[in-house]
Amino acid sequence: MKVREKGFTKLMKVEEAKRLIDEKIAYNIREYEEVDLLESLGRISFENVMSPIDVPPFDRAAMDGYAAKAKDITGASMRNPAILKVIGYIEAGDKKEMILTERSAVEISTGAPIPKGADTVIPYEETRRTGEYIEVYSAIPPGRNISKKGEDIRRGEVVLRRGEKIKSWNIGVLAAIGVRKVKVYRKPRVAIISTGDELKELGEKLGEKEIINSTGAMLRALICEVGGEPVYYGNVSDDTNLISKKIIESIRFNDFIVVTGGTSVGKRDYTIEAVMKAGGKIIFHGVAMRPGKPTALAILNGKPILMLSGYPVAALIGFHLFGRKIMNKICGTKDPPLPRVKAKISRRVASRPGITDFLRVKIYKTPNGLIAEPLKITGSGVLSSIIKSNGLVIISEEKEGLEHEEEVDVIIFKPLEE
Amino acid sequence: MKVREKGFTKLMKVEEAKRLIDEKIAYNIREYEEVDLLESLGRISFENVMSPIDVPPFDRAAMDGYAAKAKDITGASMRNPAILKVIGYIEAGDKKEMILTERSAVEISTGAPIPKGADTVIPYEETRRTGEYIEVYSAIPPGRNISKKGEDIRRGEVVLRRGEKIKSWNIGVLAAIGVRKVKVYRKPRVAIISTGDELKELGEKLGEKEIINSTGAMLRALICEVGGEPVYYGNVSDDTNLISKKIIESIRFNDFIVVTGGTSVGKRDYTIEAVMKAGGKIIFHGVAMRPGKPTALAILNGKPILMLSGYPVAALIGFHLFGRKIMNKICGTKDPPLPRVKAKISRRVASRPGITDFLRVKIYKTPNGLIAEPLKITGSGVLSSIIKSNGLVIISEEKEGLEHEEEVDVIIFKPLEE
Repeated sequence: MKVREKGFTKLMKVEEAKRLIDEKIAYNIREYEEVDLLESLGRISFENVMSPIDVPPFDRAAMDGYAAKAKDITGASMRNPAILKVIGYIEAGDKKEMILTERSAVEISTGAPIPKGADTVIPYEETRRTGEYIEVYSAIPPGRNISKKGEDIRRGEVVLRRGEKIKSWNIGVLAAIGVRKVKVYRKPRVAIISTGDELKELGEKLGEKEIINSTGAMLRALICEVGGEPVYYGNVSDDTNLISKKIIESIRFNDFIVVTGGTSVGKRDYTIEAVMKAGGKIIFHGVAMRPGKPTALAILNGKPILMLSGYPVAALIGFHLFGRKIMNKICGTKDPPLPRVKAKISRRVASRPGITDFLRVKIYKTPNGLIAEPLKITGSGVLSSIIKSNGLVIISEEKEGLEHEEEVDVIIFKPLEE
Repeated sequence: MKVREKGFTKLMKVEEAKRLIDEKIAYNIREYEEVDLLESLGRISFENVMSPIDVPPFDRAAMDGYAAKAKDITGASMRNPAILKVIGYIEAGDKKEMILTERSAVEISTGAPIPKGADTVIPYEETRRTGEYIEVYSAIPPGRNISKKGEDIRRGEVVLRRGEKIKSWNIGVLAAIGVRKVKVYRKPRVAIISTGDELKELGEKLGEKEIINSTGAMLRALICEVGGEPVYYGNVSDDTNLISKKIIESIRFNDFIVVTGGTSVGKRDYTIEAVMKAGGKIIFHGVAMRPGKPTALAILNGKPILMLSGYPVAALIGFHLFGRKIMNKICGTKDPPLPRVKAKISRRVASRPGITDFLRVKIYKTPNGLIAEPLKITGSGVLSSIIKSNGLVIISEEKEGLEHEEEVDVIIFKPLEE
């Protein structure tokens, strides 16, 4: 049997391939960078950050109204209002010291420090003011409408966890507690090696029967998108020795290697051969999915090597399924779930049992709800399916397809059409 | 009636406020930048990009197998196989010219150019090879398993629309058609003006009763996150003249102004006064939402001024509801929907009818499905609710609250807890 006809003796199920990533990939980054808080957006925290202070740093009003002593308004009601003398007004940021005496109140705005002697805040709605005096119509208990010192965040409390991806709101919280520098994982360096005699780089002159290496360009963007640092090692000819050398060269300086092309059924398995020649251990080769069947994973020097189809759509789906998972593992982080909607499929779709199908669809809003229209696609290289689709339906391996009007879960990656 | 007690005579409904943004904000950016394709990630396309070429650029195999003439295998079946002579092998990238004669076939791999004379591709599964010959067990019609020149993308077809946010897959498509430079909207410049006597900048020494301007830091990150260029104008004292001057200074060089603080009920409406003094027209002031009631919108020199609460959570929600909408309008783009899940609420929650409540929840996976636990919160400044929550439930204004175990739609912004 010739190598190029051998193909995949046994395809691995998608879930099993994911489980193997969890089980076999142990490599992770152990270095951090210290960056300014405002530069930390989108990076991954390297440590648990604890608050050095109490928030709020002092007792403060949680509503607008009057700070008072609860005992002065015990039993107050509409029929029997308590009467207090207003001795001043205090706003957020006010530095004036005020001390409440018996039967007095201080008008106060939200966020302002509670004056000494006060233990409650009476909202405006429960009062009526006449000159220097207010009538209070309700007995507000002690502590009500006051944010106590440390109530929001206690000193020593963890406000950012190791592995958390830093978003704008984390920056708000960290600024509030005075954190100016954050330790973040250095970005994972991801080597990209493209293979294929038919490939030219963007900008190079195309010969007949040659195509531009669009998958390489897409992967560089994709790796930036998910927080990595792409390192492009260029395009290598379909030659086991050359690919193997490139893998050995790149593995020293990178955390993760992505190789595209050279793993399909029709061609020789140049990439697989090259990885084995370099000393890599194959974890899986061939996944029961469409597109993306030639996807493979190996480990070399403890580092993961993901082999993806050279076709852009197959590479995109393969990277989202397996590459992101690997990158998250390397940085000890997780992704939030993808946006999904329920929609009805507009026509019957056949799918081979045992294969997970990634069906690209176009979702429409209609008066009868969302409709997902499957795009007609031949081959995993079909770029127009990316341009025309706005959603993806995963047909799991146990299903034989989708019935007309069947309700499906759709992963959304673009705005919906009206 | 004193200004500080006046408050909001009438609160605007959230949907009405959004509608007013659609109706009244006409300002948009009319300048572009030309960037390298790989630098265009996350930017917004300024024009419709048309393909200068056909994709595929030549007829190519969509499967692995044998290229042949359909007429040579008419009527072929298991019982009555057609027999063809294999005259060569052609891979993707192969430059060799091959011409099929009668009753011959060329072994071909996916992506390889179809040799002259062939009009169909027979998949391996339908053949058996013996030496130089194959038996063909099925009559494959002409055109089958071939990607025709231009079938994927026709020359002149639009592959990227004006207003589309450029993602990794767009970069793949653009690279495939040889696009090296992209015209993108220049990033909207968004001025941030913070107001409040109690505020100090991160890194400054805090006096007693002073707090760090965490909302300003968060907004700078938030504006980066959504593709804008934040321009921070610092913190201004609660002084109508000073705020007004800062607004006039910033409006010349920016596309959109965000002012925080100074619009609450308890304090004087410094910001509103300042905007009016600068010549701004108030579109709305006070929205029926919690948190975020003091949110306001004005227009000055045709440019939008969004006034948000100084409290981080209220500002965050206000910006997501209204600020993003304004930024999208300025660049003629749209956002994809947010990730949502259905969950059961773990306890009864009260909500005032007429007010849209933004309830922060913590979502858990349980054997009985997802449970959303509302966080106990007092006041819109509560930072811990951001740290502890991973989802947001919007209680619409017509609802009086949520019943125990009621199913709710939850917007997810962090990974779910197992």
